[in-house]
Amino acid sequence: MLRTQFEEDLKNLHEQFYKMGREVSIAINNSVKAFIDHDKELALEVIEHDADINNYEVSLEKKSFEMIALQQPVTTDLRTLVTVLKASSDLERMGDHAVSIAKSTIRVKGSKRVLEIEEDIEQMAGMVTEMVDDVLDAYVITDEKKAKDVAKSDTAVNQQFSSIYKKCIDAMKENPETVVVGADYLQVAGYLERIGDYVTNICEWIVYLKTGKISELNSNRTEEI
Amino acid sequence: MLRTQFEEDLKNLHEQFYKMGREVSIAINNSVKAFIDHDKELALEVIEHDADINNYEVSLEKKSFEMIALQQPVTTDLRTLVTVLKASSDLERMGDHAVSIAKSTIRVKGSKRVLEIEEDIEQMAGMVTEMVDDVLDAYVITDEKKAKDVAKSDTAVNQQFSSIYKKCIDAMKENPETVVVGADYLQVAGYLERIGDYVTNICEWIVYLKTGKISELNSNRTEEI
Repeated sequence: MLRTQFEEDLKNLHEQFYKMGREVSIAINNSVKAFIDHDKELALEVIEHDADINNYEVSLEKKSFEMIALQQPVTTDLRTLVTVLKASSDLERMGDHAVSIAKSTIRVKGSKRVLEIEEDIEQMAGMVTEMVDDVLDAYVITDEKKAKDVAKSDTAVNQQFSSIYKKCIDAMKENPETVVVGADYLQVAGYLERIGDYVTNICEWIVYLKTGKISELNSNRTEEI
Repeated sequence: MLRTQFEEDLKNLHEQFYKMGREVSIAINNSVKAFIDHDKELALEVIEHDADINNYEVSLEKKSFEMIALQQPVTTDLRTLVTVLKASSDLERMGDHAVSIAKSTIRVKGSKRVLEIEEDIEQMAGMVTEMVDDVLDAYVITDEKKAKDVAKSDTAVNQQFSSIYKKCIDAMKENPETVVVGADYLQVAGYLERIGDYVTNICEWIVYLKTGKISELNSNRTEEI
């Protein structure tokens, strides 16, 4: 059977979305690596590279818009395009947060470090990028069950944030020399926590794609700490 | 001249968007008021009320989707619907941040306070809610010039964040008793700063609505502090 032009366009759109997501995953990984290693060059790379991620979003928006306008899809096909329109914003903001983490790296100037907390942040980043990679896989095959599982793993990310938060407060109370770096740790962990929230949003979009229902997978997304 | 059904639907959609925005503005205002006054009841109200804001988003999404599917609009009309689809996410997240601020309020338990910083946060909240109200006004009449002005005022919000950041660091370094509350101040100021970013996003959508061009009004949105 021949693919229609629309199916072909849709396939391309999915691939573009997936590629954008992969770029975002790499950006998050690199930004945290740069932060932990005090690697300003890598941090600058993340910042410069963000333009590419933004271009992906603009291009996805344009393409979805064109497809809606020219081919006037309905039901499932329209739903797919709306999902791309909405979920690409989530990816773009995840990229913005990677940039923010990279900027923290550039700001930190040989402050006193707390290695234990840095290890926790590294671990948290691993959890978050795994979520990003998993949600992309779930997206590509519209796997509703996997999307729900990914959303569930956000709970562990939130717990990790709480644990880092407590350690930062303790360190800063005990030793004023750790205040600057502690505030940075809190910020970076906060960015990672929000990236987890964005992944959860995308999980919700996958459920929507499959079922047509807009649902909230984690009602307590903006976690208490 | 008789209004067509589509025009009527579009007018309703705009009104719903505006109303959602007003709810968000009130939520931000109340959350900061609750935080400063240690008013847990008001904080709980903000948290409960967030369901209404989320319902607005779901309803706007459904309605836009229906209008695209049934009436197959092109060019400007389609652009308007895409804008509602995208910008309603921004409003919804601004509401989420108000909830996060409300949750900080519930967490703070008679910690030592730094009144000067609280005044700064109050002022910052005033700047941010003014941006929210202004962008809604600009949206309703698709005022591109006003949208650009609103986006510019985000610079002052970012400066206010930097100033609060420095004061928090100084306070926490000087007096370990202010570490807990200082971390909260940083977080709340961070939420307000990001609300300013979301407003800037909506400004970009207004420019898009008017010109069809996707532009970035503040390339340094995720500010260095």
